[in-house]
Amino acid sequence: MNLELALRMCEAAIKEAARSGAVVSVAVVDAGGHLLAFQRMDGAEIAGPALAPGKAYTAVAHRIATADLAPLVQPGGELYGLAAGGGFVCFGGGVPLWDEHGEGDRVIGGVGVSGGTIEQDVACAEAAVALWETS
Amino acid sequence: MNLELALRMCEAAIKEAARSGAVVSVAVVDAGGHLLAFQRMDGAEIAGPALAPGKAYTAVAHRIATADLAPLVQPGGELYGLAAGGGFVCFGGGVPLWDEHGEGDRVIGGVGVSGGTIEQDVACAEAAVALWETS
Amino acid sequence: MNLELALRMCEAAIKEAARSGAVVSVAVVDAGGHLLAFQRMDGAEIAGPALAPGKAYTAVAHRIATADLAPLVQPGGELYGLAAGGGFVCFGGGVPLWDEHGEGDRVIGGVGVSGGTIEQDVACAEAAVALWETS
Amino acid sequence: MNLELALRMCEAAIKEAARSGAVVSVAVVDAGGHLLAFQRMDGAEIAGPALAPGKAYTAVAHRIATADLAPLVQPGGELYGLAAGGGFVCFGGGVPLWDEHGEGDRVIGGVGVSGGTIEQDVACAEAAVALWETS
Repeated sequence: MNLELALRMCEAAIKEAARSGAVVSVAVVDAGGHLLAFQRMDGAEIAGPALAPGKAYTAVAHRIATADLAPLVQPGGELYGLAAGGGFVCFGGGVPLWDEHGEGDRVIGGVGVSGGTIEQDVACAEAAVALWETS
Repeated sequence: MNLELALRMCEAAIKEAARSGAVVSVAVVDAGGHLLAFQRMDGAEIAGPALAPGKAYTAVAHRIATADLAPLVQPGGELYGLAAGGGFVCFGGGVPLWDEHGEGDRVIGGVGVSGGTIEQDVACAEAAVALWETS
Repeated sequence: MNLELALRMCEAAIKEAARSGAVVSVAVVDAGGHLLAFQRMDGAEIAGPALAPGKAYTAVAHRIATADLAPLVQPGGELYGLAAGGGFVCFGGGVPLWDEHGEGDRVIGGVGVSGGTIEQDVACAEAAVALWETS
Repeated sequence: MNLELALRMCEAAIKEAARSGAVVSVAVVDAGGHLLAFQRMDGAEIAGPALAPGKAYTAVAHRIATADLAPLVQPGGELYGLAAGGGFVCFGGGVPLWDEHGEGDRVIGGVGVSGGTIEQDVACAEAAVALWETS
């Protein structure tokens, strides 16, 4: 992971947002969950700076897409309570980056997107991941 | 948005509260979610200074009435977990202010009311918004 | 203390600010340190919503003007460390309100002003206190 | 302020960092202190994601370069204690952006840089501001 790649991932996410009509914030974090790059599209809501890095961090911290984490943190779910603190954002839009272009077993970073619908956020994050996997 | 208008919005909310028998706190924030004016009615609970500005900030940050956010953050809702952190207050009483007297596509501030029932808080916030839209 | 009086205190502080050329935020809190009224002048900095209520709370919490607290919290001062947490804002601009128009021995509220120089903030807070003492 | 300009400001800061041999993080925030763009150079310390946005926010909130704030928050300074809370980062590297290309009287955003020496951080932030003033 490096800044040049992180910036291209932000661009890929924003390109997908423009395609779907969403206005989003995008965050890319490293293996420690710490921010590498962040971009907020013109007109995107101010919740983005809080939620996009939070989703990326959460995806790295738990090595799982936040969309997949969402059912686990519900009442009755096996991780119930996780969504209640610790900076974890447990709904769709955060995706971990696995090494070896997505084929490896080590998480080396994450992407988080916020500002559209959950479906749009997830699609934007996946566009960034797709760029990562092919780079 | 300016202080003179924010004060009149507080008055409109409080007038509605008096009409419905509620005793509330009212907060008006700017486009960055930062407090412009706050008024707590005599006898209103001390939760108001925490919740009214929080509702106003949340409405601005997510560009949605907090009453509309409430079902989304419930167990099973697509934003479950949002209510647990980040200073977001996700139940009724916060309303965003859209520019061009409510007709525009840019949020330039928000109102938050706390202290009555949810229905009363919402009605008070909407009274402030109505004043905003006609001013 | 009541809202009507708190609003007049805000006006008195803002009038003094206009006189001295300052652009400030004003907070009035009750005996519990909880916000009763807040007003940010047009163009005042966004630090005001954080600092003005903090000064008012600190003045009530310690029953002392924050300007008088400032030397005590310095290195070597007897309250060194107080400024480092707990939401206390320990420089000038916060003033406690003593009952019996300033003659009593019970603190029933406080005023906090932020946005000008320390001298301006203190003068604004004292203008609000003067109104309190004569009301 | 917009994303395209914020990205060019990040680039200007990073270019200056490369020139001086520093490895930094750069943050650009809007008038509400909320993040618009962030870039961490390859190899920059993980304190950057915390400090660079904090410096930018602080510069906006207090409308002053954080380098100018530093002496005021020292023991004996008139704002002693400000550095201890509220998310304010009170040493050099944060600079406010004044409208009308730096000639106006309204702060419409800020830049924060962290990772080098204070002198390097300040020079990087000023490189971003210079781009802002001439854009």
